[in-house]
Amino acid sequence: MTSGRDARALSAEWLDRFEHALGSADIESVIGLFEEKGFWRDLVAFTWNIKTLEGREAIAAMLRANLEHISPSNWRIEKAVNLSSGVHEAWLGFETGAGRGRGIVRLRDGRAWTLLTTLEELKGFEERKGKLRPRGVEHGVYRREKNWLEMKEAETAALGFEAQPYCVIVGGGQGGIALGARLRQLQVPTIILEKNKRPGDSWRNRYRSLVLHDPVWYDHLPYIPFPENWPIFAPKDKIGDWLEMYVKVMELNYWTSTECVRAAYDEVSAEWSVDVQREGKRVTLRPKHLVFATGAYGPPMEAPLPGLKLFAGECYHSSRYVSGEAYVGKNCVVLGGNSSAHDIAADLWQYGAKVTMIQRSPTTVVRSETLMELGFEALYSEKAIDAGITTADADLIFAATPFRVMPEEQIKLYRQISDRDHAFYTRLKKSGFRIDFGEDESGLMMKAIRTGSGYYIDVGASELIANRSIAVKSGVEIRQVKRNMVELTDGSELPADVIVMATGFQSMNRAVAPIISEEVADKVGTCWGLGSGVHNDPGPWEGEPRNMWKPTQQPGLWFHGGNLHLSRHYSLLLALQLKARMERLATPVYGLQPVHHKS
Amino acid sequence: MTSGRDARALSAEWLDRFEHALGSADIESVIGLFEEKGFWRDLVAFTWNIKTLEGREAIAAMLRANLEHISPSNWRIEKAVNLSSGVHEAWLGFETGAGRGRGIVRLRDGRAWTLLTTLEELKGFEERKGKLRPRGVEHGVYRREKNWLEMKEAETAALGFEAQPYCVIVGGGQGGIALGARLRQLQVPTIILEKNKRPGDSWRNRYRSLVLHDPVWYDHLPYIPFPENWPIFAPKDKIGDWLEMYVKVMELNYWTSTECVRAAYDEVSAEWSVDVQREGKRVTLRPKHLVFATGAYGPPMEAPLPGLKLFAGECYHSSRYVSGEAYVGKNCVVLGGNSSAHDIAADLWQYGAKVTMIQRSPTTVVRSETLMELGFEALYSEKAIDAGITTADADLIFAATPFRVMPEEQIKLYRQISDRDHAFYTRLKKSGFRIDFGEDESGLMMKAIRTGSGYYIDVGASELIANRSIAVKSGVEIRQVKRNMVELTDGSELPADVIVMATGFQSMNRAVAPIISEEVADKVGTCWGLGSGVHNDPGPWEGEPRNMWKPTQQPGLWFHGGNLHLSRHYSLLLALQLKARMERLATPVYGLQPVHHKS
Repeated sequence: MTSGRDARALSAEWLDRFEHALGSADIESVIGLFEEKGFWRDLVAFTWNIKTLEGREAIAAMLRANLEHISPSNWRIEKAVNLSSGVHEAWLGFETGAGRGRGIVRLRDGRAWTLLTTLEELKGFEERKGKLRPRGVEHGVYRREKNWLEMKEAETAALGFEAQPYCVIVGGGQGGIALGARLRQLQVPTIILEKNKRPGDSWRNRYRSLVLHDPVWYDHLPYIPFPENWPIFAPKDKIGDWLEMYVKVMELNYWTSTECVRAAYDEVSAEWSVDVQREGKRVTLRPKHLVFATGAYGPPMEAPLPGLKLFAGECYHSSRYVSGEAYVGKNCVVLGGNSSAHDIAADLWQYGAKVTMIQRSPTTVVRSETLMELGFEALYSEKAIDAGITTADADLIFAATPFRVMPEEQIKLYRQISDRDHAFYTRLKKSGFRIDFGEDESGLMMKAIRTGSGYYIDVGASELIANRSIAVKSGVEIRQVKRNMVELTDGSELPADVIVMATGFQSMNRAVAPIISEEVADKVGTCWGLGSGVHNDPGPWEGEPRNMWKPTQQPGLWFHGGNLHLSRHYSLLLALQLKARMERLATPVYGLQPVHHKS
Repeated sequence: MTSGRDARALSAEWLDRFEHALGSADIESVIGLFEEKGFWRDLVAFTWNIKTLEGREAIAAMLRANLEHISPSNWRIEKAVNLSSGVHEAWLGFETGAGRGRGIVRLRDGRAWTLLTTLEELKGFEERKGKLRPRGVEHGVYRREKNWLEMKEAETAALGFEAQPYCVIVGGGQGGIALGARLRQLQVPTIILEKNKRPGDSWRNRYRSLVLHDPVWYDHLPYIPFPENWPIFAPKDKIGDWLEMYVKVMELNYWTSTECVRAAYDEVSAEWSVDVQREGKRVTLRPKHLVFATGAYGPPMEAPLPGLKLFAGECYHSSRYVSGEAYVGKNCVVLGGNSSAHDIAADLWQYGAKVTMIQRSPTTVVRSETLMELGFEALYSEKAIDAGITTADADLIFAATPFRVMPEEQIKLYRQISDRDHAFYTRLKKSGFRIDFGEDESGLMMKAIRTGSGYYIDVGASELIANRSIAVKSGVEIRQVKRNMVELTDGSELPADVIVMATGFQSMNRAVAPIISEEVADKVGTCWGLGSGVHNDPGPWEGEPRNMWKPTQQPGLWFHGGNLHLSRHYSLLLALQLKARMERLATPVYGLQPVHHKS
């Protein structure tokens, strides 16, 4: 084993050669500093895109295209550590012509196995925070200056009417809000459109028992971290109140009770015409950029259920489920076996309903306690805080592992999880519930990244399944719905007063279709997924989530989404791309993604 | 000079002897470890009071009374540093029977010059934050549990009706809110009464140009620090929004549009009967403790103005001033020469009024820039943050200097300020404006602590005075008001359409009189002031602000107030005192203050 001092010396030597080779545009030497199959993951700094370049040739091709535009310089090592198995990790700082960035390089035998570079700020457009925070008042006395409130009210009244926003964000959940806050800080005039009455309603309106399954340390929004008394797992209404507060305190231009009705792009003026219905009144906005942030994923995916017209009971998508209050003693069928299905089945059981879950395909289940300890603790926990790992550090460490490499690590993790919770899994399987850890055994997080579905973090419903409080029918589909029952593909029948379709969500690009057009929805193609070749994430391999937070095939159209972690981290990268365009900086996009799938 | 290592060794030796002497109740040895005139400032940990014990005999007397009840133990050094001029400072941790505390000792020649001890938490009643934060949801599934919102709504509906609060706070400004948040964290059922419609209105309703004169680093509330993009000097409406958000997010039981009408204490049941008018309805509350947090200081102090009945214009107290909008071209007289007088005079000038300030006595003026650099930078600034000084650390350092010692340091500071800004002061004096730095030249902060008035942090109005945009009449009073003018004590007359009385505030105990009784207001006596023997702060010397955050002569009656800094810091100490009483811990109050002044 080598010491931290060795890591620093080795990294410094590597970085010296790297900087020299980049500086002299000696691309052959640059790629010689990487392993043959080494990775360079770039977040906006070099590619004005979100790209993982896999292998020396891919790296060389990127540098041939973009190096001269980027002018990297001033590389330095922030710290260096030894990871296990002979990997030296160094944290880097650097500059480009346009901005300042950070990165992480992981070296094996003196060569880069992985390199992450990420843009953090634009030169000349640094955020006004910390040492650059605004004064709040210009000292000295001027006649008739507006005070803060009057300026804010004037801006609110004018934006969208006398003045046009540079950016419009469709959807005011955590994604739209986090991005809106970043853009506000960067002084990019922005309006967020939210169909509900109050910020946070997208959380409040969901089922009454909903509580975040991710822990607080993983969930911070930018700028205002949750306070130290915030619960580990936040209830939905508390998140709703936090978002409402956040919108107010961050001074976002947030239009409530507003629906985006139509949007059309004018190629000549490079401008959108966005028709919105705001509290019943039609307003047309003319932003340069339009961001869809309409949810972690896309619109609800409803299952086609033959015979549904004859059904005497209620049938609706899980996104519309609120509570089991009305279903005491009723026969409830929950179609699906993932997170929402579990939460809803448990909620129905609490109210005394008779619940059957129809699990169409196997589910990755992990006990919350186990995941907290083995999955989150190193980066997002009180322990990580004690170790001096800030949320920004944790996000950087997480981002430093290329998606191609991630499954290897995750397979090891899930082997460990499966061993530790062997008794739990055995008992759960006995109930007929089917468990998997994904096609390659890489578990929950890879399923989330690849397909956004297929998993449940167990906070109690698994016990209800194991002890038969919730019945399970597994490996079947609904063949047809009858008046008071559903008939399954194995020929069995279940009495049913209610059917809740916990059948997931469509790709985000489908949300574009009713507002812009089917053509544009198809032109940009599916969102999310890596092209990993597993069920619901067909190849070819793309290496980064499709269309998220980066340029798409439709100029001026962007997608922002994901959980609180992704909303926090990638909102900065998207905001920097938009700010750079507003300031007319050169933004040579490398490797704009071709479209392989439409939904 | 000795090194930091020496400071540690010296402090460790001292602490060892101190702990041993305390442990064996050897009070003679304890006081031998102090300088003859050494100080022990205790915040609740040893005295269940806020006391500075001055000199060996005072320390011995306190220990004779309280040492056996307190049982201190487990003393340790957190860090040690060398201050200038041979002073070694060590940061301490310790325990008592009831709780855990921290402290700072400053040693000279091996003896304690000053010792600060402060209670930080109660054993068995630790706040649920950080590592002890709540889970937010109990995993496992139980039938019909209430969700977070339902529990909150049920609590809100019951408190004050089916369930009685342990504590009622009169006044919902920063003081009531900070204390309410601390009590919530300590699970002390509390209702905050606020006469305005929304939390934050006490700020919003003030004059339109009001901006905090203290900087952001000094102003944080507990639990949720201002974000990194918060302005240095926050405008009043932004503070208002923050407080409103804070009340919501911290889940305070905060009754808006509610006035406290009457309160009476029943000695037998040791309970208050508090009649409130809540949105027009009478409610009677029965708390054990009643806290007045009705403002930084007390009710407005109106000057008696002979002839006022004949005045054809408007005349009102500065607390009711909103803006100069209506006074374009009008003759405005501002009576007073301190902060509000300056802000209001400048605001009137902005609107084009003709303004004369009547300065009755000299004012301490300090340029904001100068005060930020020389006064705040070491403890409350980006520089302090870079040096690793947290807000809690800064509060502790600030608290470690006894009030008796403070003027010496401040006199040095104000000599420096007066030198640096010599040109500024010379120019300002030329306009006829009278400057002082207090009777003992100790400047602004001592004036604030001793009398809560007599100063202005210059953010621009001084220039308007220097350049005669605002006229000043100094060293005079209003002899009488006539129909369209005021006659001054020097015989001169000023035309007047408006008179704003920026004449300050009464002592907080006067707010008690109309609600409880004149007798109780007199029984508790005046609030604030140290007994320093200067104008408006008559002796005898008391060494701590009178009646603030500590037991008073009226059982169950407490006062909480001050700026954001004091509200943040002392709210914890008051909350711990209340929590200890709720949990029926022994709280032997040492040295309850006798009353020397009634208003």
